[in-house]
Amino acid sequence: MHDLIIIGAGPAGLTAALYAARFKMDTVVLEKMSVGGQILLSPSVENYPGFPGGISTFELVDKFRKQVDELGVPIESAEVLDIQPKAGGYCVKASEKDYQARCLIIASGAQSKRLNVAGEERLIGKGVSYCGTCDGPLFKSKDIVVVGGGDRAVEDALFLSSYAKSVSIIHRRSEFRASGILVDKLKKDPKINLILDSVIAEISGTQRVEGVRVKNVKTNKETQIPCQGVFIFVGIKPNTDFLKNLLEKDEFGFIITDQALISSKVGIFAAGDCIRKSLYQVVSACSDGAVAADSAHKYLLNR
Amino acid sequence: MHDLIIIGAGPAGLTAALYAARFKMDTVVLEKMSVGGQILLSPSVENYPGFPGGISTFELVDKFRKQVDELGVPIESAEVLDIQPKAGGYCVKASEKDYQARCLIIASGAQSKRLNVAGEERLIGKGVSYCGTCDGPLFKSKDIVVVGGGDRAVEDALFLSSYAKSVSIIHRRSEFRASGILVDKLKKDPKINLILDSVIAEISGTQRVEGVRVKNVKTNKETQIPCQGVFIFVGIKPNTDFLKNLLEKDEFGFIITDQALISSKVGIFAAGDCIRKSLYQVVSACSDGAVAADSAHKYLLNR
Repeated sequence: MHDLIIIGAGPAGLTAALYAARFKMDTVVLEKMSVGGQILLSPSVENYPGFPGGISTFELVDKFRKQVDELGVPIESAEVLDIQPKAGGYCVKASEKDYQARCLIIASGAQSKRLNVAGEERLIGKGVSYCGTCDGPLFKSKDIVVVGGGDRAVEDALFLSSYAKSVSIIHRRSEFRASGILVDKLKKDPKINLILDSVIAEISGTQRVEGVRVKNVKTNKETQIPCQGVFIFVGIKPNTDFLKNLLEKDEFGFIITDQALISSKVGIFAAGDCIRKSLYQVVSACSDGAVAADSAHKYLLNR
Repeated sequence: MHDLIIIGAGPAGLTAALYAARFKMDTVVLEKMSVGGQILLSPSVENYPGFPGGISTFELVDKFRKQVDELGVPIESAEVLDIQPKAGGYCVKASEKDYQARCLIIASGAQSKRLNVAGEERLIGKGVSYCGTCDGPLFKSKDIVVVGGGDRAVEDALFLSSYAKSVSIIHRRSEFRASGILVDKLKKDPKINLILDSVIAEISGTQRVEGVRVKNVKTNKETQIPCQGVFIFVGIKPNTDFLKNLLEKDEFGFIITDQALISSKVGIFAAGDCIRKSLYQVVSACSDGAVAADSAHKYLLNR
């Protein structure tokens, strides 16, 4: 039986592994896709502290991984299908085999919901983005389109307008869900153009985004909007379905933890984009990984 | 009036500045000592994600600072003496002049309490450490001394014994304050030697720590213990006296925040080692800075 199984090898899982290894915990990391997680959808990151001028996400993930490799923590390719309590810990049932550990850190990440329109998947990181805070400054003096109607979409539209030449915000209803003050600011912003009752039918571009085809859902009329960026805020889905009802989650599936990242189940900790919190960034995922590993270490010490 | 004043230019304050500048907030950072804060007391950091093999703290702080400089955020040398609410924000009274801002981030850090014995200050970073999690792995197969009797001292003694050749834990009372399970493990650990009713009278060494002089407070007898490391866990004091009663603090002076790092006073946020939380590390301070800047940005957007 291992001391610790970490599920997920994004920034949260890798930092948890770094800390756990330094705590001399016998640890294994399980990852079903590729090491690095969803940050690899962005070509580079400018706001991770320690890298003036920014760094490519590929290179940053490589550094995270090397730091874990130096400490000899194994990262195995395995999809977790189920977790069951057992005497003294948990049994993690994965695609190829079962693993046992005294405690677990869930760092399985999240996915931005897709519009599921032509061109979207192909142009991710080439003008299509799901994070204004991360990528906004890359679109200085560009024409961009924002999709969504909630607080996050409106907040990011306002933020993006401080960089962009123009922002068209496309929302499928006639009213925004976002708070009134935000919507007032949106309406007053001279760079922002509201396109209501509309959806994106297609994102076009060969090497990078060149425009979107927009369809009015009331009139069915279609128009073409030239742009260099498309920011999509139609929700985030945490990768927590595999947990079924093991842990307390919020209405969207995010794991609920306390400030020390202890979940509702004794011996299970959670970190990164799969938990409910206020900010989803690489540096906060890393911090979560450190905090969860520290909590797991204290948990084992006190048993 | 600025949008934001950040008090403190350690990892938390510098990351808050990085995020605030990217949010296009008009920001100024005030620092009373040197940019970087207390991490400069350690020669290097091995557990900040992104730097395999570790990095010198001087170099890491330089990178943090460059990233802020690139965005043109001013860092001014000023000691904050008082903060007063004023219409639309706060007035920060500093040593040389006053500053006004719509909101504030307190990132003023903390200091490990000193033993105040001869040799201590001179040998900080040369064998004297206040953080086992940070520096433990640097003491592989060395003889080390741990000072303190609370949970933190005992947890770190147990952790350090996994690296060190021997650990002598020196406590001024005859009983430990730490939890029973921890103390049981301490007593069972064959590498750990308990020295009770004793204090350190002097830390000796020319270039690096070579030993400590220990005094039994009951018998007054003094003994010399050769060692290469001295880990001191006699409390942490947050740098929050200047806030007086402006914000809610815990019994030790740590600022109480919610998970989005909002303090008890509207428009004031807090980040890093000056807040009450479970783990005090560079990466968590950085994350706090990002979260506090995001909360400050949302606060101003929604006004």
